[in-house]
Amino acid sequence: MRSPVPEYLDAVLRDCAQDDSEPAAIAITTIDDSHHAAGDVEQRFTIQSMSKPFAYALAIERLGWEAVHDKIDVEPSGEAFNEISLDSETGRPHNPMINAGAIATAGLIGSFETFAEFASKLAGRELEMDEAVFESEMDDAHRNLALAHLLAAYEIIDDPVEAVDHYLRQCALSVDVRDLSTMASVLANGGVHPDSGERLMAEQTAIQVLSVMATCGMYDDAGDWLASVGIPAKSGVSGGIIGVLPGQVGVAVFSPGLDDHGTSTVGVQMMRKLSSDMGMHLMNPGRPSRSALAEVRVDDDETVYVLTGDLLFSSAESLFRRLLAEPPETETVVLEISRVGEVSDVGRRMALEAKSRLEEDGFTVRVNDGDETNRLD
Amino acid sequence: MRSPVPEYLDAVLRDCAQDDSEPAAIAITTIDDSHHAAGDVEQRFTIQSMSKPFAYALAIERLGWEAVHDKIDVEPSGEAFNEISLDSETGRPHNPMINAGAIATAGLIGSFETFAEFASKLAGRELEMDEAVFESEMDDAHRNLALAHLLAAYEIIDDPVEAVDHYLRQCALSVDVRDLSTMASVLANGGVHPDSGERLMAEQTAIQVLSVMATCGMYDDAGDWLASVGIPAKSGVSGGIIGVLPGQVGVAVFSPGLDDHGTSTVGVQMMRKLSSDMGMHLMNPGRPSRSALAEVRVDDDETVYVLTGDLLFSSAESLFRRLLAEPPETETVVLEISRVGEVSDVGRRMALEAKSRLEEDGFTVRVNDGDETNRLD
Amino acid sequence: MRSPVPEYLDAVLRDCAQDDSEPAAIAITTIDDSHHAAGDVEQRFTIQSMSKPFAYALAIERLGWEAVHDKIDVEPSGEAFNEISLDSETGRPHNPMINAGAIATAGLIGSFETFAEFASKLAGRELEMDEAVFESEMDDAHRNLALAHLLAAYEIIDDPVEAVDHYLRQCALSVDVRDLSTMASVLANGGVHPDSGERLMAEQTAIQVLSVMATCGMYDDAGDWLASVGIPAKSGVSGGIIGVLPGQVGVAVFSPGLDDHGTSTVGVQMMRKLSSDMGMHLMNPGRPSRSALAEVRVDDDETVYVLTGDLLFSSAESLFRRLLAEPPETETVVLEISRVGEVSDVGRRMALEAKSRLEEDGFTVRVNDGDETNRLD
Amino acid sequence: MRSPVPEYLDAVLRDCAQDDSEPAAIAITTIDDSHHAAGDVEQRFTIQSMSKPFAYALAIERLGWEAVHDKIDVEPSGEAFNEISLDSETGRPHNPMINAGAIATAGLIGSFETFAEFASKLAGRELEMDEAVFESEMDDAHRNLALAHLLAAYEIIDDPVEAVDHYLRQCALSVDVRDLSTMASVLANGGVHPDSGERLMAEQTAIQVLSVMATCGMYDDAGDWLASVGIPAKSGVSGGIIGVLPGQVGVAVFSPGLDDHGTSTVGVQMMRKLSSDMGMHLMNPGRPSRSALAEVRVDDDETVYVLTGDLLFSSAESLFRRLLAEPPETETVVLEISRVGEVSDVGRRMALEAKSRLEEDGFTVRVNDGDETNRLD
Repeated sequence: MRSPVPEYLDAVLRDCAQDDSEPAAIAITTIDDSHHAAGDVEQRFTIQSMSKPFAYALAIERLGWEAVHDKIDVEPSGEAFNEISLDSETGRPHNPMINAGAIATAGLIGSFETFAEFASKLAGRELEMDEAVFESEMDDAHRNLALAHLLAAYEIIDDPVEAVDHYLRQCALSVDVRDLSTMASVLANGGVHPDSGERLMAEQTAIQVLSVMATCGMYDDAGDWLASVGIPAKSGVSGGIIGVLPGQVGVAVFSPGLDDHGTSTVGVQMMRKLSSDMGMHLMNPGRPSRSALAEVRVDDDETVYVLTGDLLFSSAESLFRRLLAEPPETETVVLEISRVGEVSDVGRRMALEAKSRLEEDGFTVRVNDGDETNRLD
Repeated sequence: MRSPVPEYLDAVLRDCAQDDSEPAAIAITTIDDSHHAAGDVEQRFTIQSMSKPFAYALAIERLGWEAVHDKIDVEPSGEAFNEISLDSETGRPHNPMINAGAIATAGLIGSFETFAEFASKLAGRELEMDEAVFESEMDDAHRNLALAHLLAAYEIIDDPVEAVDHYLRQCALSVDVRDLSTMASVLANGGVHPDSGERLMAEQTAIQVLSVMATCGMYDDAGDWLASVGIPAKSGVSGGIIGVLPGQVGVAVFSPGLDDHGTSTVGVQMMRKLSSDMGMHLMNPGRPSRSALAEVRVDDDETVYVLTGDLLFSSAESLFRRLLAEPPETETVVLEISRVGEVSDVGRRMALEAKSRLEEDGFTVRVNDGDETNRLD
Repeated sequence: MRSPVPEYLDAVLRDCAQDDSEPAAIAITTIDDSHHAAGDVEQRFTIQSMSKPFAYALAIERLGWEAVHDKIDVEPSGEAFNEISLDSETGRPHNPMINAGAIATAGLIGSFETFAEFASKLAGRELEMDEAVFESEMDDAHRNLALAHLLAAYEIIDDPVEAVDHYLRQCALSVDVRDLSTMASVLANGGVHPDSGERLMAEQTAIQVLSVMATCGMYDDAGDWLASVGIPAKSGVSGGIIGVLPGQVGVAVFSPGLDDHGTSTVGVQMMRKLSSDMGMHLMNPGRPSRSALAEVRVDDDETVYVLTGDLLFSSAESLFRRLLAEPPETETVVLEISRVGEVSDVGRRMALEAKSRLEEDGFTVRVNDGDETNRLD
Repeated sequence: MRSPVPEYLDAVLRDCAQDDSEPAAIAITTIDDSHHAAGDVEQRFTIQSMSKPFAYALAIERLGWEAVHDKIDVEPSGEAFNEISLDSETGRPHNPMINAGAIATAGLIGSFETFAEFASKLAGRELEMDEAVFESEMDDAHRNLALAHLLAAYEIIDDPVEAVDHYLRQCALSVDVRDLSTMASVLANGGVHPDSGERLMAEQTAIQVLSVMATCGMYDDAGDWLASVGIPAKSGVSGGIIGVLPGQVGVAVFSPGLDDHGTSTVGVQMMRKLSSDMGMHLMNPGRPSRSALAEVRVDDDETVYVLTGDLLFSSAESLFRRLLAEPPETETVVLEISRVGEVSDVGRRMALEAKSRLEEDGFTVRVNDGDETNRLD
């Protein structure tokens, strides 16, 4: 039996990326280190502004929240990413997701190597810089240099040329969607790497970074994004978008065509579809908890998979993993869903898929929904 | 045995509201209709801007998201609540949480009576208007009239004087903290009233309202509020604040002294303490699901309470309620926490409190944490 | 002999107003009460924003500069006339030439009748209000009411509805170009009416009003207007523009077609042509003084007209008037220009015209330019 | 007989600069090359922003008005001199008097040497750069570098570091008040140097520069300055202010103490006093023409000095010069003022001073005011 998740991701890709001439890819990483991807997953691109949340996390880890907050505010600016706009009194950038704030963050971290090491730990592999991209952006960095000199005038940073060099190197790190979804999953998992189990930042840091992504991650479109997609996210002009559902998954999508906001057009559609299909909205009252699959028990000649919480994407996905990891030991399998709260579309479809695949493999499957009519039908 | 929640709320009140000369109150309502309150719970005050999320919900219900979004944007404005600031092209207010947006919302709803009826359903009792407050605000409504005429100039509303009259009546509805926490719990519960079970708005509407509260509810302080408190909220100049944790609880606090933002000083402290004690932050990766207490079963001569999910405030609170509703039928009681994910401070303290109260009542209590050391010790 | 000025004005009109389907008119009034006009001089239209400088003058006369300046600033706003923009601390309108400032001015004056009386004195005839225009603007006054309520919120004015009523009546006063050029000539003449000789405002008041017209009169185009036209001016959406060259003339032009700034397209062209032909630019180093024609004397059998200062439009125009008022008493006439500073194009052309008309009338005319070659040739 | 002008300037200095611990100086240069100065006239200081009008003139001369206007607007910005504010679409600085505009101007001119040569011609002597000031400003040029990089991002200039280097060298040119009043007098004289008679810029260029000084020269205080002082002016942070009355004089004042706008406090007072005493306001209807003293003639045994125009400062000053250049050839002297228009305070005082000095020198002096009572009494 195979997990249907890759097929689902393929379908998302097919629906959203109808123009074959452009590469497109999608990847998700759950906080218990399950990885799925579809599309041009080998395609490398530069991380660009998607580096900002991680650099901000690193700055908080190294200097503490207060010291960072003294230099960089966390308020949405309602402005485009490259707006020349600082607090008129203090020179503080409005938030770390706009360029001014990211350059200030680079100044606080102090060296590109420090960031590259941190980003590599997050991705779980040594990330490298795309020299050609870096050179070309450094040649046309007038707007970032303007911001940096302004920050230096307000004594937010010391060396503006150095800070821009660092920031542009940071932006030129080369990644693919699986790197990004892994990095995002660390934020989803409260700062602990799902694979290594290493704590890369305090839980409080992850919470603060996600909060800032929620209000400031999508620039002048932050409110609409949160209302309609509901996933803290960050886009980059290379065509990638990362999203994080706390306690659930990190997501990354990629497709180079950009809209007026400098955000991947296809990427936005894929994020919207994931959010809507999977009930991933942050404000969803039935957002599943971590322990969605409660237990597996063998009663007499039946293997019973007991699902609790809401039957959303992540609980269905975890059912599949359990089925693969601990295949039924009896001929009869029971999917016990009587304690499940809400049943979402995608959850229902995936559970039925599990049922039919088990039947294909020769098992007899029964769904137990207690006194209620079977909600999978 | 009594629930320790009222005592906890009393402690929050004592810690935050040290000046006895001012009234202060706090109330929470869970989505399964459990009510707790402390302080001056009988104190009535006007709802003021806390009416805005509910009016916005009503407008979406009546006209649909698209029609409302055409007239009122959902972007944080970074501005004070009474700023004269509309989109310079279209005249659209930045969001429905600032006065311009709330007056536009009133114009869309069309009559104060319609709103009063909706608000009364949310509160579960007939709300009345404070005539004296209304009269006094109508006498000094120049800024709101300015906004309303401007909206009329942009054809966002038709009758500016009527819209301001409606809006000020709406603001003058008289409530107490229990009304407000009940109203907030409907948003937490995806639009269904926890008591009556009546659906008062679509789940999608509740999700959109909460999203807008998250980014725009605390005016020019929205980013900092979300980063540090992490609860979608809305304050009013009467000294109240409502907060909503989706899938969990509605909260309301009250104390009249205001800070520079026009927000209750003590109220903000109470919300911060609740968020931090209860792990209520929206970005908390371990935010509990709805079905935190999995089951109660009687094995031989033991009553076993099986907790799942994370042991946070809401799961501990639900344990208490189950203990009160279905008191143990055996002398020995087992608290089964081996399937619990994370154990928060408040959860641990409340579970231990449950244990000692059971023991006071003559039961023998055993905590079962599986192979692990008992995490309650 | 006739003055060539009307013919010149006709030529300006022909050059600028090539579309015959629209009315167009032009009028000038010198500070020694000489009147010239061309085009549709009988056409009545409403004074609109051209009333603002005069209302501002009246407010200064009645309350004093300090009291008015306390309520209304004099800084260019770089904004369109109807922008909702007041000082964020004090609520002071940026200047009296934008609507906010004009409504505040109306509030300071206190009654429309007071203004109407003042305006009538300036025009030299009883001005009447166009009821239909007033009614129609009052019906669609949302933007002005918004401004007025905002001013009331800041306690700049008391009664916003009354102030807008007053302001719109003021704007609806019906005038023609000759009324306007006469009104403008009072400002040019330091506050004294050229015809009646009555002082209608202090010289200091006229100076202040002209200063504000220079920096704020043409809205967001003030700098370009001053650089290229160089005449303190004020436009109205009815299609009129008034201009004032201190110590020289009041000018008024009219043609209803408006540009993007709400200013008469043909009117702007006429003002530009007048400025350039007549050397009227405020920064022109050779701007003529009042006593351009020094004297007429009869030496033996010659009548000598002695011109001093620069030979610009106004000195040439005054030569013509002197020739008409005191026709030569001898057969030979001498135009003595040896003390003249600069000779402008229009001055040269008009002086030659005077010479040829005198010759047509049978006089022998000699130009005396001292040792220099005759600069009229 | 000596001119009383130096004594008058001394009095202005005494009245305004009461704190002896600070240097102060004042100088005026008429368009017919008469020079007067008082105070610390030898004191050198850097030209700073007072270089801006001259750099702008040079750019117009070299590239033409259109090309310069394409890159730099002429609208008042209502902002402080160092505001980071460009047109959001085009990146055009609002005007050439703020730093952004001045750096753009430097970029258009292309080399500091070209400007230094031009400035030296204007001053009539080789100006040198203060190396120490330049070095120190270059060390702390973050704000200017920010502006320059921003201009480069918008392709207003090519090389931002070069442009700032040029601009700061330009600002570091060392001058005294007499240099500045001479430079200003070229603008007053329509572009022709009063001493050398060389045309250094087209009259049209001088007119455009003066217009921009009038609306933008005094930063966020432009409207108030024009209303109350009425002299196109430009201040520098070194404590100097230059002023120009077209067709009359160039003025320069100096005193290092600065107000909140970065403008010399004592300097502003001196400019105000000059304007008010001398009737120098641009909007003064009686602003004198160039040919204020009409002629000197000897009738029988009387030397008659015939004054025309208004008897203001400049005509009285020219009377003195004529008396010094062509001392009376007869015992009896007549001051013929019957053709004079208005008689200002300062004009009356200076004419009486002339009378009493002539009497001290043994002449008999008679004032002839035609039929009128002698207006000098």
